[in-house]
Amino acid sequence: MAIVYDELLNLSIPDSEQSYTWKDSIMYALGLGLGLDPGDPEELAFVYEERQKVLPTQAVVLAHPGFWMRDLDTGIDWVRLVAGEFDLTLTAPLPPGGTVTGHSKVIDVFDKGEGRGAVVQSQRILTDKESGKEIATIRQSTFCRGDGGFGGPARQQPKPHQVPDRAPDLICELPTSTQGALLYRLSGDLNPLHADPSVAIKAGFPKPILHGLATFGVAGHALLKVLCDYQPERFRRIGARFTAPVFPGETLRTEIWQDEEGVASFQVRCIDRDVVAVGHGRLEYDT
Amino acid sequence: MAIVYDELLNLSIPDSEQSYTWKDSIMYALGLGLGLDPGDPEELAFVYEERQKVLPTQAVVLAHPGFWMRDLDTGIDWVRLVAGEFDLTLTAPLPPGGTVTGHSKVIDVFDKGEGRGAVVQSQRILTDKESGKEIATIRQSTFCRGDGGFGGPARQQPKPHQVPDRAPDLICELPTSTQGALLYRLSGDLNPLHADPSVAIKAGFPKPILHGLATFGVAGHALLKVLCDYQPERFRRIGARFTAPVFPGETLRTEIWQDEEGVASFQVRCIDRDVVAVGHGRLEYDT
Repeated sequence: MAIVYDELLNLSIPDSEQSYTWKDSIMYALGLGLGLDPGDPEELAFVYEERQKVLPTQAVVLAHPGFWMRDLDTGIDWVRLVAGEFDLTLTAPLPPGGTVTGHSKVIDVFDKGEGRGAVVQSQRILTDKESGKEIATIRQSTFCRGDGGFGGPARQQPKPHQVPDRAPDLICELPTSTQGALLYRLSGDLNPLHADPSVAIKAGFPKPILHGLATFGVAGHALLKVLCDYQPERFRRIGARFTAPVFPGETLRTEIWQDEEGVASFQVRCIDRDVVAVGHGRLEYDT
Repeated sequence: MAIVYDELLNLSIPDSEQSYTWKDSIMYALGLGLGLDPGDPEELAFVYEERQKVLPTQAVVLAHPGFWMRDLDTGIDWVRLVAGEFDLTLTAPLPPGGTVTGHSKVIDVFDKGEGRGAVVQSQRILTDKESGKEIATIRQSTFCRGDGGFGGPARQQPKPHQVPDRAPDLICELPTSTQGALLYRLSGDLNPLHADPSVAIKAGFPKPILHGLATFGVAGHALLKVLCDYQPERFRRIGARFTAPVFPGETLRTEIWQDEEGVASFQVRCIDRDVVAVGHGRLEYDT
């Protein structure tokens, strides 16, 4: 079985729906490490239900369609998937609780050639069920290592955003919790890689790793703090590429470049190991 | 308004019911600090859904009747309450998820005299809704500082259990998380004292404190680890008295004395401040 280009592009992915509460929003924020300094009033607003704020990146865990690359008739060698890029555009601030629907589809497939893998780009549009209003668009690219040379049109994938080749203009260091992956799992991604040491070792890691999207969320937190004064409604769009694993408990330094009005570049470095875990980052925000 | 002895003893407290899932059980365990060392396989069993174990003390957060001393016609000066003693007897191991009902009643009231307060003892019996089987009995005494001299019979409250006056036979030090109170709140006790610095200061604390029952739960974890080899079914009964507040992030040393077969005494010390936070502890367990 292999990818059939036209069929994958026209794949029908069932819509998803999720009701979530203020508790789920607090759990998401705690999973990213907010509240590790309980004396920080700005962080408290995301982990306490009084005048509760919601982290914009929480959209990525809502109304998730599940593991459709495995569960539907995609032809994809799902065992050999690796997360690639992620891009979130917010059209409205997330409420602390509500019911959202997710409409997912494949938007593009790139064949990198035999033995070189393929890249599947998919999109999920989140809508508030009650009002019918669009909340967010989530795009992601998945690198399918086992699917190169399936016969798709040979095109170049768009180049990822490049961060400047100079020292960052701003940095923001944030701790993660050693419980971070265990807690982040409760937001929906139950891959045992993030909890079970034996599964982690089989996957080639010395111990369970933090979810890539949790690291992405920590970057979102850092950018919200440093560039948006903790005002979620100023956060417009964030995109980046996963480049290396993070272990729960590591301190993450978000390195930020301000290039033009309302646009920033960023990357996330694990300072303990001096490794860039999330690269090619780009943020659009209201100044 | 004041306590009317006979009326309080005959107060009808509405039954409570709660459905909870394996995620709630993990959240409870994470709130107590399990998983802070993600490499500990014994702790992992309580914070990962594969072959999930449940901490016996989770019973105290299930099917809680709410703040009935305030919400019902009790006559109690509820603003001036202080938690006193807590006693949990388990008749069956808790499943990771299920539906439980709670039947609560007042079992005794002690009048300590004008200006000296009163003590209200209440009980909640937890039952598995589906099987009708009893799971646990929870008894607690609440010190009502504003209710002394209401005219109840002058009797002495039973003396609390005394721990031996010698060095402990065993100790178990466990960390708590600085996120502990914020996380433990999600198990149901939303008192802002445990999150909001301004509320904590008004209550006379320099910052938010950990829930007393969270500290109680950490003691239960320590005892389960040291005396029951992490086998919840060997944990029979645990009782103790709250003696001082704990701040999230403090390390707690459970000091244990083994006096007779199947019975231990214990207390919990905050090692940073050398203060006993939970005293007069007694455990019954299967050896």
